Formats: sequence, C-alpha cells, structure tokens
Amino acid sequence: MFASFFDSWRMTLVHRLVDLALEEDGQDLTSCALFRSDSLLAASIVAKEDTLVAGLPLIALVLERLGVGAACSVTLLAHDGEHVSTGRTVARILGPAPALLKAERVIMNFICRLSGISNATQRFVQAVAGTGVRVLDTRKTTPGLRYVEKYAVRMGGGYNHRANLEEMLMLKDNHIDQAGGITPAVQALRTTYTPCPPLEIECRTLDHVREAVSLKPERIMLDNMPPAIAAQALALVPAEIETEISGNVTLDTIADLARLQPTYISTGAITHSAVVADFSMRLTSTVSETL
Amino acid sequence: MFASFFDSWRMTLVHRLVDLALEEDGQDLTSCALFRSDSLLAASIVAKEDTLVAGLPLIALVLERLGVGAACSVTLLAHDGEHVSTGRTVARILGPAPALLKAERVIMNFICRLSGISNATQRFVQAVAGTGVRVLDTRKTTPGLRYVEKYAVRMGGGYNHRANLEEMLMLKDNHIDQAGGITPAVQALRTTYTPCPPLEIECRTLDHVREAVSLKPERIMLDNMPPAIAAQALALVPAEIETEISGNVTLDTIADLARLQPTYISTGAITHSAVVADFSMRLTSTVSETL
Amino acid sequence: MFASFFDSWRMTLVHRLVDLALEEDGQDLTSCALFRSDSLLAASIVAKEDTLVAGLPLIALVLERLGVGAACSVTLLAHDGEHVSTGRTVARILGPAPALLKAERVIMNFICRLSGISNATQRFVQAVAGTGVRVLDTRKTTPGLRYVEKYAVRMGGGYNHRANLEEMLMLKDNHIDQAGGITPAVQALRTTYTPCPPLEIECRTLDHVREAVSLKPERIMLDNMPPAIAAQALALVPAEIETEISGNVTLDTIADLARLQPTYISTGAITHSAVVADFSMRLTSTVSETL
Amino acid sequence: MFASFFDSWRMTLVHRLVDLALEEDGQDLTSCALFRSDSLLAASIVAKEDTLVAGLPLIALVLERLGVGAACSVTLLAHDGEHVSTGRTVARILGPAPALLKAERVIMNFICRLSGISNATQRFVQAVAGTGVRVLDTRKTTPGLRYVEKYAVRMGGGYNHRANLEEMLMLKDNHIDQAGGITPAVQALRTTYTPCPPLEIECRTLDHVREAVSLKPERIMLDNMPPAIAAQALALVPAEIETEISGNVTLDTIADLARLQPTYISTGAITHSAVVADFSMRLTSTVSETL
Amino acid sequence: MFASFFDSWRMTLVHRLVDLALEEDGQDLTSCALFRSDSLLAASIVAKEDTLVAGLPLIALVLERLGVGAACSVTLLAHDGEHVSTGRTVARILGPAPALLKAERVIMNFICRLSGISNATQRFVQAVAGTGVRVLDTRKTTPGLRYVEKYAVRMGGGYNHRANLEEMLMLKDNHIDQAGGITPAVQALRTTYTPCPPLEIECRTLDHVREAVSLKPERIMLDNMPPAIAAQALALVPAEIETEISGNVTLDTIADLARLQPTYISTGAITHSAVVADFSMRLTSTVSETL
Amino acid sequence: MFASFFDSWRMTLVHRLVDLALEEDGQDLTSCALFRSDSLLAASIVAKEDTLVAGLPLIALVLERLGVGAACSVTLLAHDGEHVSTGRTVARILGPAPALLKAERVIMNFICRLSGISNATQRFVQAVAGTGVRVLDTRKTTPGLRYVEKYAVRMGGGYNHRANLEEMLMLKDNHIDQAGGITPAVQALRTTYTPCPPLEIECRTLDHVREAVSLKPERIMLDNMPPAIAAQALALVPAEIETEISGNVTLDTIADLARLQPTYISTGAITHSAVVADFSMRLTSTVSETL
Repeated sequence: MFASFFDSWRMTLVHRLVDLALEEDGQDLTSCALFRSDSLLAASIVAKEDTLVAGLPLIALVLERLGVGAACSVTLLAHDGEHVSTGRTVARILGPAPALLKAERVIMNFICRLSGISNATQRFVQAVAGTGVRVLDTRKTTPGLRYVEKYAVRMGGGYNHRANLEEMLMLKDNHIDQAGGITPAVQALRTTYTPCPPLEIECRTLDHVREAVSLKPERIMLDNMPPAIAAQALALVPAEIETEISGNVTLDTIADLARLQPTYISTGAITHSAVVADFSMRLTSTVSETL
Repeated sequence: MFASFFDSWRMTLVHRLVDLALEEDGQDLTSCALFRSDSLLAASIVAKEDTLVAGLPLIALVLERLGVGAACSVTLLAHDGEHVSTGRTVARILGPAPALLKAERVIMNFICRLSGISNATQRFVQAVAGTGVRVLDTRKTTPGLRYVEKYAVRMGGGYNHRANLEEMLMLKDNHIDQAGGITPAVQALRTTYTPCPPLEIECRTLDHVREAVSLKPERIMLDNMPPAIAAQALALVPAEIETEISGNVTLDTIADLARLQPTYISTGAITHSAVVADFSMRLTSTVSETL
Repeated sequence: MFASFFDSWRMTLVHRLVDLALEEDGQDLTSCALFRSDSLLAASIVAKEDTLVAGLPLIALVLERLGVGAACSVTLLAHDGEHVSTGRTVARILGPAPALLKAERVIMNFICRLSGISNATQRFVQAVAGTGVRVLDTRKTTPGLRYVEKYAVRMGGGYNHRANLEEMLMLKDNHIDQAGGITPAVQALRTTYTPCPPLEIECRTLDHVREAVSLKPERIMLDNMPPAIAAQALALVPAEIETEISGNVTLDTIADLARLQPTYISTGAITHSAVVADFSMRLTSTVSETL
Repeated sequence: MFASFFDSWRMTLVHRLVDLALEEDGQDLTSCALFRSDSLLAASIVAKEDTLVAGLPLIALVLERLGVGAACSVTLLAHDGEHVSTGRTVARILGPAPALLKAERVIMNFICRLSGISNATQRFVQAVAGTGVRVLDTRKTTPGLRYVEKYAVRMGGGYNHRANLEEMLMLKDNHIDQAGGITPAVQALRTTYTPCPPLEIECRTLDHVREAVSLKPERIMLDNMPPAIAAQALALVPAEIETEISGNVTLDTIADLARLQPTYISTGAITHSAVVADFSMRLTSTVSETL
Repeated sequence: MFASFFDSWRMTLVHRLVDLALEEDGQDLTSCALFRSDSLLAASIVAKEDTLVAGLPLIALVLERLGVGAACSVTLLAHDGEHVSTGRTVARILGPAPALLKAERVIMNFICRLSGISNATQRFVQAVAGTGVRVLDTRKTTPGLRYVEKYAVRMGGGYNHRANLEEMLMLKDNHIDQAGGITPAVQALRTTYTPCPPLEIECRTLDHVREAVSLKPERIMLDNMPPAIAAQALALVPAEIETEISGNVTLDTIADLARLQPTYISTGAITHSAVVADFSMRLTSTVSETL
Repeated sequence: MFASFFDSWRMTLVHRLVDLALEEDGQDLTSCALFRSDSLLAASIVAKEDTLVAGLPLIALVLERLGVGAACSVTLLAHDGEHVSTGRTVARILGPAPALLKAERVIMNFICRLSGISNATQRFVQAVAGTGVRVLDTRKTTPGLRYVEKYAVRMGGGYNHRANLEEMLMLKDNHIDQAGGITPAVQALRTTYTPCPPLEIECRTLDHVREAVSLKPERIMLDNMPPAIAAQALALVPAEIETEISGNVTLDTIADLARLQPTYISTGAITHSAVVADFSMRLTSTVSETL
C-alpha cells in the first residue's frame, strides 16, 4: 500500500522531507573519523513495547536519499500496520558503517513517530468498533509530514479526510459569509468548477443542515454540535449524503458519538497529539554470520 | 532571539520546511472560487488554554514564503516564551483573504506544536527548579523540524544539546568498540580534528567514567545508570568537565536525578511526545475598524 | 475547469514547462534596446481561421512566470472550448512592451498548438456523434506537455485515458508474459496494491477477453482487433465492465467502430498529429484609448 | 552532430525537458508489481513506415536521466538523418525491465515526433532541390522543445533561423514604429551593442527594402510580399546581404518562390504542423541470445 | 556590451554566483537591529586611485538578486572600460538601509576585482601598442567567475580566448599522443563534428607546425617556444591561419614577442594575478537633497 | 582540519561553487572525441616554485561533483599548509581520461589560487613573528569563494575575522550615526539579541575608545588610526577586551604596528591581492606501472 499511497507528487514531497531531515543533522564527524567508509555494520530495529509498526519502507528510502541505497540491504521482518510485541525485530539492515550511523536517527525518528500515530488511531478505531463508523484524520498534521502521517493513520485502521485543499471543496463559515449564504456559495463553486470536486458543507445549526441537504453535497459536517442536536441533524440527512461529526472528539466521547451513526467522526488528536512508539536500533560490527 | 537562533543555514532549512508545508496543502480551491484575490480578511490568533506561546515569528515567515509578505500586516501581541491565559489574543494579521485562508492551517500547525513543546519543556524545567540543573533536549525531533523544535525548547526554559552531528563529537558504544577502547577513540578524534570540536563521552560503568575523566573531554554522559551508580560516577568527575544524565528520564524521576547535581539532564520526551497547545485563528471580513 | 484540471502536481509541471519555454527563447535583445522597460503595449490575440480555442489561461500564467504578472492586465474575450470565427479577438493584454514582446511567441505557440489539438479532437468526436461512444486520448503526447495537451483534448469534447502510469494499472503483453498469464498477473497486482487502482487489461483474442472478464477489471481493451472480432468480443463483456477499442483508429474508420458500441475509442492522432490552429497577436503602442 | 549541436546551455534545457517528461508520466505501478527490478528486457525500435530517423541519441539520454544509464546498453543501428525503410530496426536496448517499460513511451514520443519533423523538412527541401535556396525553420516550435526540434530540422536537410531572441537582432514593425523608422532603429541597436550581433530587417514594401539595404544589415526579410513584388525587392539587394522570404509558405508555393532566388525561405509548418513518424518498440524478455 | 556579452547561459551562471556571494555573507544582524527596513541610505562608489572601472552593471544585478531591485535607484556616473581619476564618483545608489549595507561588500568585492583585471589587461595591451597584436586571456580564471572576469578583460582592451571547452576545439599533447599524431587527431575531430567547431593546435616544434599547417586549422598555438624558434614557426604559417604565442608571457617579455607579429599573445596573469583596484563605498543617511 | 572547517552549510556553498566552476567550463568536446570514456589517465600535480600548498581536498571533491568520484583514486603526497619545494609532487590522481581532462583546469585554478593566498598570509605572519600578534583576514574575499579563501588563510598561519555578517556584530560609523551614538547602539543590539553574539566596535578617536571600553564589547577595532594615536588607544583598553588594528596595513607597516601589541591586525590584501602559486598537472596515459 505504501507504493500506491504515495503517488509521484506525494513521493516528491517525501523525498524533500527526507533530504531536509538528513541535511539538518549535518555530517557525522565522530563516525567519519573512526570508521572506514567501507566497513560494514549490521543493524536491527527492535520494538521496545507492544505497538503497531508504521514507516518501514522509509528505511530503504532514507538510505537511498543518502546515496547508499545500492550498498545497503534491508530486510523487513514485519509489515506496516502489523501489531508487534516487545522484543520483536521488525527490520534488519546491513550497510556501510558511517552511512548507517548517519541515517540511524532519521530512520528511528520516522518509525517511532509514525508508529505512534498508528497506535493513537487504533485506540480511536477500537473505541467505535462494531458501529460501522469510520475514524477520520484532519489537516492538523505536522508541517511537512502531511502524507507520511496520513499514511500512518491508514496503518492504524483510520481513514483519510481530504489530504489537502484541492482534493475536496469545503465550505466553512467564512466562505458562507462571504458568499451571502450556503446556497449562493454552493452555486458559485459549481459554476466555477465543471466537473465540480466533491463538496462538504460545515453546519452549526439544524437550519444549516436543512439548507445544505437541499443542495445535495457529497458530505455534511456537523461542527461542534451537542450530541442531542447532532442526532436531530443526522435524521435530516438522506442516506446518499455522507455525514461527519467533528469538534472536541476524545477517546471518552467518541463511543457515544458513534452511536449516533454518522458516516465519519474526525479528530486531529490522532496526528497532532500522538505519543511516539518505542523502538531502538541495535548496531553490531560482527557481521560475519549475518552475511 | 528568533533572528539570532536561526543563522543562515538554519533559516534556509526553515524556508524549505515552510515551502514543503505550503505545497503539500495544495491550492485552496474553495477560497479561490469565493474570494476576490484582493479582498481583505482580519485574523486573530487566540489561546484556548493557559499555555506558553512559541513560533509567532513564523506567521510573517509563512506569509512571506507564500509571496504575500508585502500585502500583509502582522502585529504580535505576545512574545515567544511568554505565558498567556485562555482567551488572550497573541497576534493579529490583516491580509488578502485567499492567502490568509491558505496559510491558516500551516501557521496554526506550527504554533500549536511549538507551543506544546515549550509547555512540555517547562514542566521538566519546573521539576528541577532550584537545583541549578539544566534540562537538555536530544536529536529525537520530528524529521525536518529540528531547529524549530529546538527553538521551542529554549522558549520553554530548556537548553539545547548538540543540534546536529557536527556541532559536537559524541563517542557511543559502537565508536568505542570500533576504535578498541575509549582512549584510542579519543586519540583518533583529536588527531583527525585540529582544533577539535567539543567532545562528549557516553559511559555505562564507573571504569568508563574513570577512563573518560583521564582524557579531559568537555562532557561525560552517564547513560542509563541507576541513580546510586550515577551518584558515584558524578563524584569521579572534576568540576571542569560537564556531566549529563540521560536515559529514561520522566517527570516522575527527574527531580531525584537533579538532586545528584549533574550539569545537565537530557530527555527526548520534550520534543517527541509533547502534546500540542490549543490555539485557534478567528477570521473576520469586517475589517473597516481594524484599518 | 482549468483550475480544477491542474492540481498542485500538474501545475508544478506546467510552471516548469513555461519556465523552460521562456528560458530557451533567451533575452530579447532587439526589444530591450528599443523599448523602455516601462513603455506599454496593447496586444490582441485574433483567430485567423474558424477554430476552437484552448489555452487562454496560459496567457496570464506565462506573464506571471516572466515576473510581470502584476504589471499586466489580461482580458479574455472567449473561453476555452469555445468555437470562434475568423477575425474574432479572443484576448486582450496590456503590459510592459519588452515583456509582451518576449512572451508573445511562447503564448502563441501554446495557444495555436492546444487549439489545434482541440480541433483534431472535435473532428473525431463529431464522427461518433449520436453513438454515445467517448473518444479517448493516449499517452502519445509531446514530452513535457502531457497535461496541457490532455486539457486541450477535454476542450475539444474528448475524454482522458489514464494521464500517467500511476492513475490506472494496465496489463500489456509483456506484463502478462512475465506473470505467466492474465490471471496470475491480475492476482499479483491485487496482492501488491490494497486498495487496488483501476485496472485495464489489453486483449488480442476472444480467449483473452473471456479470461479478462472472469477477473472483473474496470476496463477491457480490444487491441488492434478486426471489427468483426471486436464485435464478438464486445458481446462477451458484461455492462459493468468498460470497453475500449484501440489501434489504427482514423477519422475514416472511427464511425464504423463506434457502431460496435464500445464505451471508448482511443487514438493518439488527436495529440501527436494535430495541426496547429492559426491565431496571431497584434501589437499596438497607441494605448491611450485602451486605458 | 548531436554533441556539437547541443552545447552546455542547450543540453541543460534538454535535461530539464527529459526530466519533465519522465516525471509527468509517474511511477509505473503495473510494471513495478510484476517485474523484479533486476530482470532484463531487450527492446528493438522498428520503423513502421519509410521515414527519416531523428532523435536516436535521446535513447541513452532518457535512460541516463532515469538513473539507469550504467545498467543499460544501447546499440544504434541507424544514424540520425538517415532514411530507413519499413521494418528496419534502428536501435536495440538491453536493460532492467521496469526501467525500460517506464522509459518506453518517453523515448518513442521523442523519436516519432522528431523524425516527423525531419520528414516534413525534407519534403520542403526536396521541393526546392536544385535552386540552391535553403529552407529555414522559425521560432514556432513546441514550448520547451526548441532545440530538439531545430535539431530535427537539420536532420531533414533544413537550416536553422535564429534559435532564440539573442542569437540575432530582428527588427519587426513594432520596433520600427517605436524607434520612428528603420534607420533610427538600426542606429539605436548599433549604439547599444558593440560589437553588434547579426541583424535582420523585416520589410513589407520596396521602400523599406531600399532603406534597409542602405543600412547594410546581415539579412533582409521579405515578409508576406506577393511574388511579383518579392522579385523586384530581391533585385534591390546586393549579393553581400542575405535575403529571406517568409509568410504563408506551403509545399505548393515554395518551388515558385525558390525560383526568385532568395538566400532562404522560412516556414513554421515544418515544426508546428509536422505529423509524427511511425515507429514502435518491441520488447522481449528472452534475452539469452542477445547477450 | 554587458547585455550582449552575457547571453542567457552566462547570465544564469552570474545569477548563481551572485546568489552564492550573498548567501555566504549571511544575514546582517547588526544592521537589521539598528535600521528600520524602510529607512533609506544613499551610497556613492568612489575611486581611491586612478583606474579603469569594470562591473558597474553588477550593482543593479546584486540588488535585484537580493530582492530589492524595485526599491533601489542606481545611477551610473561612469561606464565600464572608462578610465577614472582618484576621487571620481562612479555610481550613486539610493535604497533601503539594511539592503544596501548587506549588498555593500558583495558589490565592492566585484567592482574592485573586475576593475583590477581590466587594469592588468590594459598594462599588457599598452605594452604591445602599435603592433596590431591582440592580448588574449586564458581559462586560468577564478572558479565560478569565468565570464565576469573575461568581461573585465574586454573592458581592459583585451580579447577572449575560448571561453570554455566547447567554443573551440584545442589539441594538446595528451590528445595528440592518444590519437597517434596530429593528423589522425584532426581527422578524428572532423569526423566526429560536422560542422566542426574552430580548431586550435598546440605546437612545440617546427615539425609540429608544418604538420599543423597542412591541416588548415583556424589557429596554431606556439607553446613555450623560445623567441627565435617562434619567429621561424610564424614564417611557416600562411596568413589565413591565426597564430598565438603562449607560455611564460610577462610584462617584460610581451613587447619583444609582439614584434614577431603573431595574431595573438595569451597570458593567464591578467586574470589569475591581477591586484584589486581601490574603490570605496560612502554611505550617508541624510538623503533629503539627493531625492 | 578541512572536514571540521567546512560544516554542512559551508560545504553546501562549496558544492555550489564547484558545480558552477564545472558548468561554466562546458563539455570538453576535444577530449570526448579522442578518448574512450573508460580509458585511464594518471595525473601528477607538481609544484613549479617553493610554496605553501592549500586546497588538496578539493581534488576529490571536484571529481565527486563531476560524478566520477568512485571511478578515481586520489593520493595526497603533501598536506594543506605544508611548505613544498619546486618539483615536489603533491598529489597523484588516476581516473577516466575525459573526466580528468575536464576537471584539470578547475582543480588547478583552485589549488593555485588558494596556495597563493596561503603564501601571502604567511608573509604577513612572518613579519609579525615573535610579537604574539595574530594576522586576521577580512570579508574582502572573492565573491562565492569566502570559505575556501578563509580556509587558505588558516593554512598560511593566519586567523579568521568574522566569516560573515551573522557570526559577530560589528558597529561601524553608519550604525552608530543611526542609533545616535555608540552607547545607544550597543544597548539596542543587546536588547534585540539575547544571548547577544560577540560584538566589535569600530573606533576612530580616543573618545570613541573610552566610550567603547565602558560598554565591555568582545573587541575594539582601531580603524585607520595613526600609530601614535593607536598606541594611546591600546593603553585605554583592559586586557579582557581584544583589540584589532585595521586599515592600510601593508607588509612594510605591519611589523611596526605589531610592536604596539594589539591582539589582532587585519588586512584584506592577503585575500584580494594574492598572486597565484605555480603548480602544474602532468598527465600520462602509460598507467601500467602506476596500477
């Protein structure tokens, strides 16, 4: 799924992010002075806690951007989205010592963060298990990491809200005020874009929902509505329009919200407030058996 | 401090990060269809909780990278590192509507994340208050965000460990094994680099500490030592060599560790597991009075 | 439709193409010596034949990439996809003389070529009028112009086949040989990609078609089949699978092929062998009334 | 001639064009899923009609820009500018399967288009055979393909007009109006540039020609003159000044124009309205004998 | 002449050089803290010795690359190649204070160095005055400054040898050895390149010269020949082939060498060992009268 | 010292400079026509005079940027900063002939220039031998070569003044005028920057020195003071503040100035007016013994 998730555009952005991460960490003066450039090291990435794993394909990608792709061999012993137990080795790498030592922190910073996002997502997904409701992320991602983080959400069983400002049109308060109402706003969008991208309308009141429904958008968002009002709102929306509950969704409240049976519940917490998962990289220079 | 913290190199990296963040979010099709490019919006960034604030200079920088720097006016009503209460407006922006709407999420993702790191740092700093011990960050930062995150640590009262692999030499297990011991490793480094950058040696045993002390490095790290051993180790190190306690440092344990009186205690948690601070951006198109 | 057709990725590619076109044409030494950089010229783009028009939004884009977007005003007097008669003015530009003279040829080379592609497309579309069959383009486009040419096809009433190698999977002879048959090839693809992008299978015999149908791909291509065989093949394909006739399609043969009622007929001729449309740019320095 | 035609600047532009062409086509998801990256394919490029061939050196260049230059072997079996018959194999390539499949369409789009331009050029050149008149191209080339198209014109026996706006000065109506006449315009150019690049003056009347002759430019263009007037104009120009007939030149009219004995006749049709030549690439995975 | 000397390719290289020069000097922290970004400064560039001046158009170019071109006005009071006396003001600049202070050193480093090269060139040119011999530069220029230095040579009255490795073919010892003699080397070049770029052959003996003459190259270089031998060599070369004396040319020896009447004498000293000319920039903030 | 002098930022700038130098020299048409790309050449770099040597690590770097790093072997037979006698071979290179011939001039232009700067520096250093005074360079370096030139100064025994505008704050006349005096200027700087970078204050009078001393900057510059006044000024400065004599320092005057016992004497002459050192590269194709 990594290859199909990252189309050319997203892959270009990931390359730029990895380059930035490698450059900001500078030249590894310590290792360059102590290791010959052709001495080999073997590395194992090991889970230090029970956790989902995400980001393993980035190992090869980081080594490639470092210019040592051809000189390294990477063996994945788990797959993204898999749950692993403490002590499980998820990947083995064999490659030139200075390059591995230089890449180590970048690789680990990616894997620990992305796995942490998968874990956070999974907790929300499990909280709505059995309801059929889908957990969505938001655009509240770390600047520059939009697509790797949204990928980690998928690995945790979540779904992606629009990835950016052009995948889907989304009418918010300011747009509606500017256009003089929901109806003229929708008309303006549909006049501008033919064919028109999918459209979501944010609603705060039942009147908004009624007006939105009449315009047949692809999705209606119930933004920060009290659960009782949200229930009434959902009753107004026909089956062919998707619904999304958004705003102050927590692990404590999501189960109740899911019982209202919206199509989606979205939350920024799974990306912006995830705690990293604990993995470590063990390095050994006695590589004779490994080869 | 923002200007002096971000030298030319760091600023180049930040520019690339901001560009990446703006590009990954795409073109704002909704706003482009509904707002004239020269219509103005006023925006206020407001704290939704009691929090430190960090990252305010990024507001102007994001607008500049978006190409609308000259068309926008930014007024900061707080300064980075300041503690603000719920409801406090920390910045006002006036600028072209489509540009502000496009920049909104990038700006907020930066400020919420960086302020969250400052908060996390401050909690560790307060836990060691009165001991004179300094709280250090690590290289466990988000890929691509190394310098903005280390800046946020400073805003929270923390200090920066080496920012990258070339600011300071650091001998770890693998280096020592490769060189055949601490002493030959240090000799190799000092032969290679004249003048030699500052040097830190990771030690796991008291014997390591004794050998390291004899080599007069700038700093000695006590890595994952039980507190009782760490106390003995610290007694071996003369005042002119800095000491650093590292490994599994938490809010619960840091106060006890600080009582051992190392120079520094370092922890990755303040960057890799900080929870975002809550700010929101309020937009209004009725800008007549504001002007 | 221009804005929604060109998402961020495509727009980046167009920017690079326009930059290349401006750079390859060098500095306009003649105009720089004879015009002050702030002298104004008015330009009109006029059809010299009855033709569709395509590419008008590129006028502003070229001027913008040249760095004079803010100094120019562009008024479109027709819209892309419109049929215009000889003598019709489709756009007016007012801007600095040296910039307009420098941009003239690049703008005209785009508009003439893209309008020519729209015309060629329209001829094929008209040849199948009333059959409900859609005319598709191919990947046989000019290197570097993939998306502007596919846009021109849309302006001529055609539809776009997959725009690139990642929008859709497409099994050709070599893939099938390599996998050891259609069925194992499809299985390999569906194992690799979850979710799996849309899939098209090229078929040359009725047996291929039967096997392909059993695998339920999104589309089946009848590649270079004689019309009589194609008719039998189409009878084998259930309605929920799209069909595409491809190979040696000409204006002479397309009407007969359309009568077989495939979903699509595709042809490279509308992009690779289109003749440019005839437009000219008239420049006048007497701009007093225009202003 | 390829190497000397493409100096560093032109080669840089070609590299950017090839990169653009490769990127716009995306990742070849189908082939990546079905071929190991180190499996080999043999490819033959075969003429499907009697045609000139142009662009063969681009095969190696495309593979090089794709990063597989060292892993591929390219054998050219014809040379650019050669006439080949239907069925003739003009190049053989051996290389990694996924790379060849990815490069296939880009390579073929270049060779078919450039060969088509050579064919179109040759038809015009043959129409003036025996007259000593040279056929020139114009700047009406595909945006971004200026130099590869001008190269194809050379391969068809044509000559290149100025390749860009800085190789030659060219006075057109607007320049002359702006300067207040041909003479002051030429004086301004010669004052600005010392030494002055070659100069061509566009003339529409016999009076213009007389004035132009008195200024001794390198070339005089007779722009859209009726043949009878052009004959009189040519009689006014001394031998040391080159002459160029331009405007509405077609295969039907060029022979008559050539009889007037200008130095050059120029036409945009050989680049902007050429029809592609028909080549195909045949791929086979049974490479044992080939090696 | 600046505009025609720097074609698109050369100008791109100059832009990159200027960008590099501005970036390597970092952010002007002192000035940014003390001047408002919109406060104005007036600057005068004044000769501190009698000197030629070269590089004045770089003033505007540096300001433009710094992004303040539109905010600055530059008035040139001398022209490149002019001889100015001590105290002469050669340029006035008015612009934003922080930008001028940031640009000051880059501008001055260019003008002082280029003027110094013009002076050095002029001394060699004056030493051969009256002989008709032309003084040539070499490729021994500062890395990255090839074209600005060759431009300064022109401003000092010198001529340019080939600017790079593709403007002219040049057969040296290694090439001749590799090819098995001068004649096979020339044949190989003429077979490879049609048309063939101008060709120069380095000769060390009279036999070499005889063989070279028989091959009719554009130029023959007499490399490090004693003057007496050089005189004999020159007698062997017919008028239509240019000649160049090269090797250990100094201000002391050039006049004698010029009396031998070669077409050119070349020397690296005018670029690689020129001493800078002395100019200073005077800044004043009392700009009221200046405006 | 090369590796530690060039941190990531400086190395990026050097890479860009080397790329520029390689590109400006174009493709080596002569060598490409005569040498197979895999034929080997051996090269020796030999001193043609007694000289310091500087820049040897650039040999490998140039070959690497040319893309042939892995195909070349470079053996250094001297180290940067070493004094070598005429005839000494300082480096041997073995690599592909066309690449070596292409890189030759770039490598030699660097080594000759940098060694020349080391020589010039050494002459100034020797003139102050025994006084303990340090010789400093300035920012009067060749545009784009700032760091390689400052490195060469170090190799000649000199020290580096601030490398750029952000390493150190420096108050000059204009800054002081703008702020209304030295004291308010220093206050403004210290308010703006916390912590404040090192500060140097330029002084022209004894009163300035007295005021500067009271502000405790890191360094005080005595700018263009007559030696007698400079002596009085130095007497006013306590030991903990460094002092620097600047302005019109020559080889004739520096010894007398050094007797006044400032901490530093700075001079632009060691970079801007150094004469190149004489080295040559000898190439031989008979590489059998070398291997």
